Formats: sequence, C-alpha cells, structure tokens
Amino acid sequence: MRKWISLSLLLASFVLMSFTLNKKKKVVFFGDSITQMGAEPGGYIRLMEDLIKSENQTNEFELVGAGISGNKVTDLYMRLEKDVLSKQPQIVLIYIGINDIWHKRLAGTGTDYVKYTEFYDAIVKKLQAANIQVVVCTPSVIGERKDHSNEQDGELNMYSNWLRNYAKVNQLPCVDLRTEFQNYLIANNPSNVEKGLLTSDRVHLNAKGNQFVAEAIWKTIKDLK
Amino acid sequence: MRKWISLSLLLASFVLMSFTLNKKKKVVFFGDSITQMGAEPGGYIRLMEDLIKSENQTNEFELVGAGISGNKVTDLYMRLEKDVLSKQPQIVLIYIGINDIWHKRLAGTGTDYVKYTEFYDAIVKKLQAANIQVVVCTPSVIGERKDHSNEQDGELNMYSNWLRNYAKVNQLPCVDLRTEFQNYLIANNPSNVEKGLLTSDRVHLNAKGNQFVAEAIWKTIKDLK
Amino acid sequence: MRKWISLSLLLASFVLMSFTLNKKKKVVFFGDSITQMGAEPGGYIRLMEDLIKSENQTNEFELVGAGISGNKVTDLYMRLEKDVLSKQPQIVLIYIGINDIWHKRLAGTGTDYVKYTEFYDAIVKKLQAANIQVVVCTPSVIGERKDHSNEQDGELNMYSNWLRNYAKVNQLPCVDLRTEFQNYLIANNPSNVEKGLLTSDRVHLNAKGNQFVAEAIWKTIKDLK
Amino acid sequence: MRKWISLSLLLASFVLMSFTLNKKKKVVFFGDSITQMGAEPGGYIRLMEDLIKSENQTNEFELVGAGISGNKVTDLYMRLEKDVLSKQPQIVLIYIGINDIWHKRLAGTGTDYVKYTEFYDAIVKKLQAANIQVVVCTPSVIGERKDHSNEQDGELNMYSNWLRNYAKVNQLPCVDLRTEFQNYLIANNPSNVEKGLLTSDRVHLNAKGNQFVAEAIWKTIKDLK
Repeated sequence: MRKWISLSLLLASFVLMSFTLNKKKKVVFFGDSITQMGAEPGGYIRLMEDLIKSENQTNEFELVGAGISGNKVTDLYMRLEKDVLSKQPQIVLIYIGINDIWHKRLAGTGTDYVKYTEFYDAIVKKLQAANIQVVVCTPSVIGERKDHSNEQDGELNMYSNWLRNYAKVNQLPCVDLRTEFQNYLIANNPSNVEKGLLTSDRVHLNAKGNQFVAEAIWKTIKDLK
Repeated sequence: MRKWISLSLLLASFVLMSFTLNKKKKVVFFGDSITQMGAEPGGYIRLMEDLIKSENQTNEFELVGAGISGNKVTDLYMRLEKDVLSKQPQIVLIYIGINDIWHKRLAGTGTDYVKYTEFYDAIVKKLQAANIQVVVCTPSVIGERKDHSNEQDGELNMYSNWLRNYAKVNQLPCVDLRTEFQNYLIANNPSNVEKGLLTSDRVHLNAKGNQFVAEAIWKTIKDLK
Repeated sequence: MRKWISLSLLLASFVLMSFTLNKKKKVVFFGDSITQMGAEPGGYIRLMEDLIKSENQTNEFELVGAGISGNKVTDLYMRLEKDVLSKQPQIVLIYIGINDIWHKRLAGTGTDYVKYTEFYDAIVKKLQAANIQVVVCTPSVIGERKDHSNEQDGELNMYSNWLRNYAKVNQLPCVDLRTEFQNYLIANNPSNVEKGLLTSDRVHLNAKGNQFVAEAIWKTIKDLK
Repeated sequence: MRKWISLSLLLASFVLMSFTLNKKKKVVFFGDSITQMGAEPGGYIRLMEDLIKSENQTNEFELVGAGISGNKVTDLYMRLEKDVLSKQPQIVLIYIGINDIWHKRLAGTGTDYVKYTEFYDAIVKKLQAANIQVVVCTPSVIGERKDHSNEQDGELNMYSNWLRNYAKVNQLPCVDLRTEFQNYLIANNPSNVEKGLLTSDRVHLNAKGNQFVAEAIWKTIKDLK
C-alpha cells in the first residue's frame, strides 16, 4: 500500500516537474561580446533574471546566453545550428550589428549593408522554420554623444532603420535599443561625453547599461504570447 | 590749354579707376572639387556674381576660385602660398573637409580628426598673418538623407562641431552649410532619398545646390566689414 | 519479334545513356565574379570544355559554373546548399578570396584572416560530408606587378600560404593560381605594369587570362581519381 | 709682452674653437616614432654616436633627433620650418612612410601614394633651397615575415620603389632600409615569425633593430662629402 502511495507521489511529482519544465520558455540571447558579457554575473541577462524573480515569473522563463566576442551577422549564421537550434528554444533575441559596422573602421572587415540584411534574413527564416519566435534588436551605440556626432552614428542609424522596418514588415517584436539609448543620452548627457554613461568604452555596457538593457528587453519579452 | 584739360581728365579717370579698383574686395574660395566646379559656369561662385550684380555691388567684390578636386586640408596647407597668398586677397573662404572624411572610406586616406584641426588652424594663422579675413565653412553633405542615416554623418557632424566652435572662439564668420543643408533636407526630402535634391551624387552640387550655396555664402560675405 | 528487338534496342540505349550519364563527373566551380564570367562564352570554364573536347574526354566531365559577382567566403557558405549541394556534383573547385581581401580597401568590408579560414573550413567539411571531392585554389592577383609591389600582395600571399598548407594537411588537390600567375608575370611583365597581361583591370581575367586559368585548373582536374 | 701672448693664445683658441664648431656637421633625423625613440638612450641615433666615437669622428658630427610619434609625410611638411630649418643642419635624413601606409588600415587615415610623393618632394625642395643635403630612407617593415606575406608589404614595396627611383633621379643618397631588413630577415627568420627579430611589435625597433639601423645609416652618412 505504501509502495503505491510513494509511487503515485513520485509519478505526480514527475508530472508536475514535466509540467513546470514544459511551461518554461527558453530564451536564447544571440549576439556578440555585449551578450557574452551579458551572461556573466552583473550582465544584462543575469539582471533580467532578477527582474523575472521580482515579478514571480521564475517558473516561466529560462534565459540562455549565446554571445561570442567579435561576432558579426555572418558568424551568427555559421553557428546557428550548433549554438541555438540545438538548444530548442521557444524564443531567440538577436542582438547583432555593432561589429558589422565598427570593424569597417577597426580592421576593414565590417559587413556590407546589403549582406547584413541578407544574412540577417537568412537567420530569421531558419529560426522561424524551427517554430522559434524571433525578437529583433537594434544596435545600441558606438559612442555616447547625443548629437549624432559619434564617428559611426550614420551607419548605426542606417542599419537600425532597416531592422525596424524588417521587424514591422515581418511582424516581429523589436527592442529598439538604439532609440532607447538615444533618448536616455539626450536626457542625461549634458556635456556630450562619448562614454561613461551606459558604456565603459563607447560600446560595452557598464553596470548601469546592463540594467538599462535588461529592463528594455524584459518589457518586450514578458508580454510575448 | 586743351592739352592740359585732356591730360587732367585722363589723370582724373586714372585716379577714379584706381579708386574703384582699390575698393574691390578680392575673395578667394579655397577648397576641393565642389569649389573647383563652383568656378565653372553655373557654379556657386559664378552664381554669387549674379547675386552681386543684382544688388549693384559689382564694383565691390572680385571672386576668385581656388578649388582642386580631391583636396583635403593638408593639400590646402601645401598650396596656400602659391594659390592664395600670392593673389593678395582681402578675404578667404575655406570650404574643406568632405574629402578628409569621405576618403577614410573610399581609400583609407582621410584625415585624422586631430590632424584636421591642426592643419586647419595652421592655414588660418598664416592667412591672418597676411592680414586676410578668414571665413569658415562647415562641410555640407555626403548623402542627403535627413535623419542622420548617411554613412558618414557622424564624422561630418563631429568635424562641423569643431569648426563652429573654432570660428566662435576665434571670432571668425562661419557659413554653417551643414546646418543649412540639414534644415533644407528636413523640409524638402520627404522620402528620405540620398541624392538629387541639392547634389547630383550625394556630394557634388547640382544646379539647385549651387544656387543654395551661392546664397548661403553671399549672406555672410556681403556684410563683412 | 520486331517489337522485341526494338524494345531491346531501346532498353540497351537507355542502359548506355544511363551508363554514360553516370560516368560523367560533375564539377562545380564555386566562386566570385571571375568564375561568374568564367561560365560565359570565352570564360575559363567554357575554354576548359574545349580542352576536354580536344582530349576526347567530353563524356567524362560536366562543368557547371556557380560564381556570383562580389562574393566572399561567407557568401559561399550561405549559398552552399542551394547552389552546390543541390546539384550533387562529384567535384567542387573553390576559387574564393579576392573580394575577401580587396573589399578591405574598397569598402571596409573584407574578411578577417581568421574568419576566412573558419568559413573556408566549414565549407570544405560540408562538401566532404556529402562525399564531394574538394579542389582548393589560391587567389590569383589584385594587380599584375611582378615584384610584390601591388597594394594587397601581402594579404594575397598570407591567405594563399594558409590555403596551400590547408590543402596539404587535408590532402586536397590545390591549384596554386597565385604561384602560377606570379611565375608567368616574372617571365612576361618586363615593364612591371599593373594590368593587361592576364587581367583587364588588375583582377578580372582577359582572354589570355581565361585561357591560362583553364589550362592551370584542367591540369589538376583531369587527373583526379 | 705677456699680455700680447695671452691675447694671442686667446684668439688662437677662439679660432680653433670656431674651426672645430664649423667643422661639425649637424645631421637632423626627421621622422616618426621610430626616430623619436631613436633619440632616446639605446635608440639608433644614440648608437650611431657610439659608432662615431669608436671611429674617432666625434668632432665631425652632431646628431639631432626630430621624430614625432604618429607622423606622416604631411606632418613633416608642416613642421619643417620649426623643427628642421630653424636648426640650420648641413644634412637631413628623412625616414618617413610607415604611418602613411599603416594608418590606412589602422584608422582610414593613411596617405595616398601620389600625395605621399608630392609632399615628399616638397620637403626635399625646401631643404635643398636652404642648401641642406638630403638623405632618403626607405620605410623598414610592418611585420617581419620574409616571404612578402605581411599584410602591407605590397604598399611598403610600392612606396619604396618610388623612393629609390626618386633618390636616383635627384642624385640623393638613399639608405635602403627596406632592402636591408628584407635581406636580414631572409637570412635570419627561418620560422617566418612576424616580430621579435629587429622589431618588438612588427614596427618599432628592438635593441638589435636600433643597432642594425644605426649601422645601416652610418655607412651612408660617414661618406657624405
């Protein structure tokens, strides 16, 4: 008799567990060094987990970092199978583009605008073919000056314009980090400095920047159906 | 007796002529291909002469083109003696900076921001040492999109910020072409195209662009004391 | 009776045809504009067919062009499935690298050395997984000066060194176009001009260049087991 | 009588001193960071003084460093008056070109080949107008690989070709550092490493490199009439 009870309990807990496990949405954050650092303690992914906890939704979401330093859209395309599809996520947030632009200047090895859009679209198509919900992100900043006078603002705006329109046309949620950063800097950068507000070095997020991105992305992720 | 009269008249007319000649202010336009083309028929310098004529000031100004295609600030520095100082102008308008930025992308041979400011200042100092009045110009555009999404808008804004401040600190008149173009494009480029409004090819002025620049510069030049 | 005979003949011819068809080795040439133009009349692929015909091996080889203008190694990786694997070739010759280097200077969008090797290796692995024989090619030239004074000779040599070693380590046949061009130019470019011997514009093959490449590749292809 | 003697001695020593002073040839080394470091203890200029001493020619030469980090040919042109002509040297050695090429890749701000030649020639002309003997130097290395596979070998060779020919046509002594380095590396770099033989970082001279350059330049300087 006892045996039956314990067995039933065991089964019940398995059922509950699997129910719980199934309910958790796995979100993969697919990106570059900003996302690689975002998965470390204090990073935006870890801070988003705190937000999730504070809203008692810990059982709803599992956050997985898939960022690699120096990555461009072509690198994401190459490691899509191994680093994302194999993890069978429900949601993938793509946060890529800064190196595609930055490396034009740094090393002559950025990504052509048209190629950027082609590889980006190819990634989205493959994710959708695996029934994964895609969230688009515009590239934040390379330099924090608020008056469009950072060296590569023009290209960041150009690529962001495409991303916003692509998200709209394809009905994908879009975390418009570029606009959110811009608005924050207009309000908070009176002396027009090029770093130190949300980034430590013009590109990589400092503590405040990680918190800022965590909140910006969470606003979108939490409401995904 | 008659002889004396005709001689007196002759002398008088010489005096008048030389008076007239002395009164003409010689303005040298010192720049790149935009200014080289500005000196050709239909160019902004020739159109400015029409404005001068329509305001009956033909006897006041002599306009001289000194633009050479592909020039950067370093080239102006090198040919300052030969092409400008030797002409003994009263006024020099410096319109340089587009190639300094553009060639970074075109050929890897633009001008570092700090070097740009150093050579620019060295040119101004030499002109002032020759008692020449200097007029500063901000670089117009590389691409006519109105929303800061032209590839090199960031650098054009960065270099223009320096020029505006340099003019202010050194009490030089400044024709802020960059801002004037920007305002015109916001008002007149609803579909956000990258060329065809004031330029033919994103950089070089079309007929309307030459007229626009002629008027913008004339507003400043006409009031110089 | 006749019926049987004609039927037998029909069957026999089918068998022969299928035998013939099966015997033909399909070779896909995978590359950039040089290969795209190589598939046009007078191009190196078409000239190689003439060589094949003159050696009575028309029934042995089927040559298929898969070159697209402007392509880099990342583009080949993206269209590998659609443009190569889907055609089920026995042999694939990869002729890529010039734009990966050239575009560093042209547009700031070349391919980092390490990324080049990673994408290249990923392509080879996928081809080998489909039992396809891979032939490696070193990039020919960007400029025909013979004394290592073409602007991007250093990088062409650097990437070629990697390709030669990669081919050796992985026991892949390698058509060393770079060395063959170099040797030809040392012998035939006494005035050290930068184009007009094997190329029309420093990069794309002229008639002689197409013939030269056809012969160089054919030497390797004809002997593949 | 004594008075006369001491006066005569005094005069004689003045004459001797002035003779000695006049005899010393002042050599200015005009260049970039390599030359700036060359003027520090252990640098090539200081080591050349040791060579001069060992050959008992200390009274013949006075060596003056005029190198500034990051300089290109345009910078030398700008500071020619202040840093060279004002010092009234008999000899000026120009060692410039590495940043003109390197910065194309580093920052998009190198010097066009044609502009390099124009500014170089303008510097030489100004030095010659001041009766100064000019010594030309080819740029050493950006990377020490011996097989023409350093990223920017092509351009270093291209600019060096021009310098060698310019020196020849204008009958200027030329210290062909590029060729001397190349020969040294072919003999001494069996594993084809990119730094550590004559440079510490592919460009700047280590102790051995400073000694090497001191000797190479001294060979030419010592025999100047």
